[in-house]
Amino acid sequence: MSAAAIRVNGERLWSWLMHSATVGATPDGGLCRLALSDADKEIRAWFSAQCATLGGTVEHDAMGSQFARFPGVDRNRPPLAMGSHLDTQPTGGRFDGILGVQAGLEVVATLCAAGVRTQHDLMVINWTNEEGARFAPAMVASGVFAGAFDLHHALAQKDSEGLTIAHELARIGAAGPVVPGTRKLAAYFELHIEQGPVLEQAGMDIGVVTGVQGMRWFDITVSGQACHAGTTPLAMRRDAMQSAAAMALEIGRIGASDPGRSLATIGRFEARPGARNTVPQDVVFSVDFRHPENSALNSMEQALRVALPPLAEQHGCRLALERIWESPPVSFAPGCVDAVRRAASCLGLRHRDIVSGAGHDAVYMARVAPTAMIFVPCEGGISHHPSESITQAQATAGGNVLLHAVLTFDAAHA
Amino acid sequence: MSAAAIRVNGERLWSWLMHSATVGATPDGGLCRLALSDADKEIRAWFSAQCATLGGTVEHDAMGSQFARFPGVDRNRPPLAMGSHLDTQPTGGRFDGILGVQAGLEVVATLCAAGVRTQHDLMVINWTNEEGARFAPAMVASGVFAGAFDLHHALAQKDSEGLTIAHELARIGAAGPVVPGTRKLAAYFELHIEQGPVLEQAGMDIGVVTGVQGMRWFDITVSGQACHAGTTPLAMRRDAMQSAAAMALEIGRIGASDPGRSLATIGRFEARPGARNTVPQDVVFSVDFRHPENSALNSMEQALRVALPPLAEQHGCRLALERIWESPPVSFAPGCVDAVRRAASCLGLRHRDIVSGAGHDAVYMARVAPTAMIFVPCEGGISHHPSESITQAQATAGGNVLLHAVLTFDAAHA
Repeated sequence: MSAAAIRVNGERLWSWLMHSATVGATPDGGLCRLALSDADKEIRAWFSAQCATLGGTVEHDAMGSQFARFPGVDRNRPPLAMGSHLDTQPTGGRFDGILGVQAGLEVVATLCAAGVRTQHDLMVINWTNEEGARFAPAMVASGVFAGAFDLHHALAQKDSEGLTIAHELARIGAAGPVVPGTRKLAAYFELHIEQGPVLEQAGMDIGVVTGVQGMRWFDITVSGQACHAGTTPLAMRRDAMQSAAAMALEIGRIGASDPGRSLATIGRFEARPGARNTVPQDVVFSVDFRHPENSALNSMEQALRVALPPLAEQHGCRLALERIWESPPVSFAPGCVDAVRRAASCLGLRHRDIVSGAGHDAVYMARVAPTAMIFVPCEGGISHHPSESITQAQATAGGNVLLHAVLTFDAAHA
Repeated sequence: MSAAAIRVNGERLWSWLMHSATVGATPDGGLCRLALSDADKEIRAWFSAQCATLGGTVEHDAMGSQFARFPGVDRNRPPLAMGSHLDTQPTGGRFDGILGVQAGLEVVATLCAAGVRTQHDLMVINWTNEEGARFAPAMVASGVFAGAFDLHHALAQKDSEGLTIAHELARIGAAGPVVPGTRKLAAYFELHIEQGPVLEQAGMDIGVVTGVQGMRWFDITVSGQACHAGTTPLAMRRDAMQSAAAMALEIGRIGASDPGRSLATIGRFEARPGARNTVPQDVVFSVDFRHPENSALNSMEQALRVALPPLAEQHGCRLALERIWESPPVSFAPGCVDAVRRAASCLGLRHRDIVSGAGHDAVYMARVAPTAMIFVPCEGGISHHPSESITQAQATAGGNVLLHAVLTFDAAHA
C-alpha cells in the first residue's frame, strides 16, 4: 500500500473517544475530568497503556505532561509530535482536546498496522491542565514547556481548595523527572474541534489553521453619581448607565471595524448599586478585543482610548480603563500549515483557512517548534458544554488530515 | 398678636429634630430606625409624651399609625391633619419624614403658646412604615388608611427575618383598635424635605408641591445566544449586550422627550452569565419612567413598546417587556395648594411650584382628603443617606409655611 492510500481506522478512533467519554462522565452526556483529578489519573493510565501496546515509551515531565515516543527510522532526529489534552472543563464535552490526543494515537496505530515507518520518531503528547478550569492559567504545561511560565511558579498554582499542582501531580503519580522544554521537537501538529460555527456554516470538513488571533482584555469602570430616580432632573444627573451604554455601542462599532477579522465582546456588564429607583453610581464592564494582527489590535485599543473619554465627559462621569491581559497573535509555521492544506486537498476534503479564535497548547508550542493545527467542525459551534458534539466521520476526516500532514512533513524533511 | 404674625419656635423644632437624631443614631451621623423596631418604639413613646404635654390624645389604628388630636373650637368638624413618618431607611438621614411630624407638633405647640385656637381640631399623624425598608410596600399604613391596601394583607407582610407587621405591632404595643380609614379628615398637610436638588439649585426656600408625578416600572429581558467570544464571528452572534445597550440609549432618549418633566432611569442592568470571554446570553434590566401626567406616561410607554422590538430583532434577540408596577400621577387639592402658596408668599419666602418626584404618604391621603405638601430644600438633594442635611433656618421656614397653610385653610373653611 502506498503511503498516500493509508487511512486511519475511524471505528477504532471513535471507540477510543467513546471510552474516554466514560471516564469522568456526567449524567448529561458530558465530561467532568479536571486536571490531575482521579478521573484524569485514570485516563492518563489508559493513555500510557495504549502507547505501550503500540510500542511506545511514555515519559512525564515535571509538569506531568505525558510524552509518548514511537521509534522512527532515524532515532537521532527530534521527534515529530502530535497532541493536545485529556483534561476537561467541569461541564465539558467529550471531544475538546481529547480528539487531538486520540487521533495522534490513531495515526501511530495506523502506521504501525500498515508497516509504514516515518523518518522521525513520532510523539504523542497529553498536556497537563490545558483548560485552566482547575488551576490557572490555561495551557500552563505547554506554557512552561515553551518557557512562557516559570516551572516552580506553575507548580505552586492552587485549585479552589488550595491544593497545588505539585501536590496533585505527586498524589496521582504524574510528576516526572524531565525538565519541560529540554526536548527539541521537529514539529507539532494539533487536531482540535473548532469550538465555533464557521466551518459548519460554510459546509467545510476541515479548517487549515493558519494561526491564533491575538486578544486584549480590558476592565472598565464608569463612575457617576448615584441619585434618586424620581427627584433628580436629567440635567443634574451624572448617569453612569447612560454613559456606559453609549460606550458599549462604540465598542461594538470598533469590533465591526474590520469585518470578518476584528471582534469585540462585552461579557460582563453590571450597574451598581443596582436599585430600580436609583441612578447607578458605577457601571463595571469587560471588553475582549480579538484580531489576527497585532497592528490591528493596536488600532482597536487606540480607538477605544479615544472614543470613551468623551462619552464619560458628556455624562459628567469618570472613566477608569485598564488593559488587564493580552495574548499576541500567533502565525503558525508555513511549512506545517502547507502540509495540513495539502493533506486536506489530497484527501478530497472541503477545507478552508481559518484563524483560531480560542487559545490552544499550539499557541505556546509555536514558540519552540514549527507548529500547525487542524480544525474539524463541531455541531452548532458549541463547546465547553455537555452537548459538544462531532460525528465519527468528522473525527475520521480530522484523523486522516493529521496522518497525512505528518507524513507530508516527514517526507519533506527526510 | 394677630394670627398673621405668629411664627413657630425654630429653636424648639430643631431641638426636637436633634432629639430624634439620637434615637437609632448610627456612627456616621445618620439614623437606622426601621419601622416597629425598638428604636421606633422609643421615638413613638416620645411622640406620645409630647402630644400629651400639649393636651392631645393619641390613638393608634390597627396599622399602628399614631393619630394625636388637639381640640379646636368646633369639635364636630373632622380634624385638620398634619404629619409624615418617624421611621427611616437602614442608612437613613435625620430629616426625611421626621421633619413633617415634628413640625406638626411645633405648629400645635406654637398655637397653644399663642393662645390661638383653630376652628377644626388639629391632628398630627405619624404613619407606620412609610419607608418600606423593613416591610414592603412603602407607605403601607397610609395606603391601608386610604383603602389602597387590604388591612389583613398588610398586617401579614414580613420583614427579611419573617416577622410580620402584626407580630411587631403587638411586640412594641403599637396596635390600636381603630380600623384605618374610618376617620374623616378636613385636610392633610405634609411638610417634607425635597430629596432632590431642584429647590437648592434654584435658590428657593419653599417648594409648593402641586402633586406627585406618576411612575411606571418595567422589567426587561433581552435574550440572545451565549457563545465563545473568540470563535464566533459577529455575523453569527445574537448579542444580547449590544441589543440591550442600544435599548438603554433609546430609553434615555424617551426620558429626555419632555425636558424638565419626563424622566427615565435604568437602575439595574446585568449581563448574564457574565463571563469575560462569552457573549452574554441574556441581559436583564429595569426601567423607571416618571412624568406628572398620565397621558405623557402613556406616550412614553408606547414609545418604549415601539422602539425596543426592532432593536431586539436587529441582533437576533428575543425581548420580554413587562410593566410590573405603576403609580398614577397625583394632583393635590387646589385649595390646599393655594393655602401653601399664600403662606409662603405672606411669609416673604422664595418659593416655586414643584411636582414631587418621590412617593409620600400624601399620595394616598390625597385619595381621601384635600391634601397638599410643602418641600424645603435639602443639601445637595441628598436623602436616604447619613449625610442628608437641612439647616435650622430651612426647618423653621417649612414649619412656618405649614403653620400658615393650616391657619389659612382653617379660616377659609370656618
